[in-house]
Amino acid sequence: MKVITIPEEVFRTLDLQSYYDDIGLVPTMGFLHEGHLSLVRRCRKENSICVVSIFVNPIQFGQGEDLGSYPRDMNRDLELLEKEKVDFVFAPEPSAMYSPQFSTFVEETDLSTGMCGSSRPGHFRGVCTVVLKLLNIIRPSRAYFGEKDYQQLQVIRRMTDDLNLPLEIVGCPIVREEDGLAMSSRNMYLSPDERKSALLLNRALSRARDLFEKGERSGTVLERTVRDILNSDRKVDCEYVCVKDAASLKDISRINREAVIAIAARVGKARLIDNIRIQP
Amino acid sequence: MKVITIPEEVFRTLDLQSYYDDIGLVPTMGFLHEGHLSLVRRCRKENSICVVSIFVNPIQFGQGEDLGSYPRDMNRDLELLEKEKVDFVFAPEPSAMYSPQFSTFVEETDLSTGMCGSSRPGHFRGVCTVVLKLLNIIRPSRAYFGEKDYQQLQVIRRMTDDLNLPLEIVGCPIVREEDGLAMSSRNMYLSPDERKSALLLNRALSRARDLFEKGERSGTVLERTVRDILNSDRKVDCEYVCVKDAASLKDISRINREAVIAIAARVGKARLIDNIRIQP
Repeated sequence: MKVITIPEEVFRTLDLQSYYDDIGLVPTMGFLHEGHLSLVRRCRKENSICVVSIFVNPIQFGQGEDLGSYPRDMNRDLELLEKEKVDFVFAPEPSAMYSPQFSTFVEETDLSTGMCGSSRPGHFRGVCTVVLKLLNIIRPSRAYFGEKDYQQLQVIRRMTDDLNLPLEIVGCPIVREEDGLAMSSRNMYLSPDERKSALLLNRALSRARDLFEKGERSGTVLERTVRDILNSDRKVDCEYVCVKDAASLKDISRINREAVIAIAARVGKARLIDNIRIQP
Repeated sequence: MKVITIPEEVFRTLDLQSYYDDIGLVPTMGFLHEGHLSLVRRCRKENSICVVSIFVNPIQFGQGEDLGSYPRDMNRDLELLEKEKVDFVFAPEPSAMYSPQFSTFVEETDLSTGMCGSSRPGHFRGVCTVVLKLLNIIRPSRAYFGEKDYQQLQVIRRMTDDLNLPLEIVGCPIVREEDGLAMSSRNMYLSPDERKSALLLNRALSRARDLFEKGERSGTVLERTVRDILNSDRKVDCEYVCVKDAASLKDISRINREAVIAIAARVGKARLIDNIRIQP
């Protein structure tokens, strides 16, 4: 496994594109967990060359967000990736990605409004910009993203279509702890008590799915069910609960096509997100 | 010469990248003149494969601008390009470039402010977005742009650096009519009288260059010289005259490094731009 830190070095030391048919990329912010590793394994299986990027992207964090405290452990990450037989890790410093005169941004203006876009202005602009940069540096034929960040996945799919990017975006299922908590690097912010409260996110979503499977088709009822469960615990500070068309992310009041129920909530210092999809 | 109109067809019918080392692209809006053809010849000379795109890009025109009346003559363009031994022409319909749900834009936020960016809000966003799309569709190793659109060239260079695009941006000198008018598809809007007035742009720039060569180093004096000459003809409606650092496009008051003197002016229905660079 070779670790590269300079974008130009990706071209210089290996002209990947000329030698290999299919390169897979898993973009991450590091502090890897089983969710990331599930992407890495799928990438490893589906491509001749498996590249993982580790980069805590400053421009996707807003003022007062957790850029400074975002958990990092490069040595542990590299050990985990070595075990997964990753070929290349791209782990640049911020200064290698953003020159002092950096001034070009990519903005998706439809799917990225609402949900996390409302509470995190500029977040998806930062995500789109760095993802496009990573795609241009690595030039993969496939890139892997987790469905936990469902809105992000849809925004990146749209960007890929809109900008004619020559690759496949692969979405991978949420990986959960045994008790149902969606895996996230930010779970480490949770105290043991908060960790228990955080379970409500998945429980509320599961309860909504049960209702849906028993025939409930009202988006409003499902949303209220989730919200009531979250509000039952004072340690859970609900930011949004919504039921959206799974493709367009528009509001959906009757579930007559695939929908996503999505949550963002603060528990202690952690801002957590989770979602499930339901299909009539 | 093969004409392609569907982005996906570029991939399907010829996987350019796999077969050829170097592909050159000349992006144009058609209605070709000797300025375009100088780019095409250079592209032809420097690359194994020479691709020209013809696309009047709706999203770079503002409200009330000349999108509807922009001159077009595809048959003549194709004849000219055939003579230049161009390999491929990419000439998509707007609907092939912009789906109904299109929502992703690329924005350069530094060099694109001021000058044409002030009078044409959204213009460079439209330019960056379409250029990035064309680069992703054609995947050239070199792309050719005229220096007449000097700000555009600098914005595209910055975008290319910022987004790690794997290609070289080649700027090519302004081509002028015998009497000095910078070639432009929009010159056809000019009546014979207006055509004469339009000559003032180049004359004013030449006069500033003369002063500079005689030792004048004040940006203000050079700017005023140009402006006074333009204002001497009532048919010339000056939009801006500026003296800028040639790389950063910041104002420059003393010419102690390479600078550009740039003009935008309306003559009749035509909005004309021109510039010269001066180097102490």
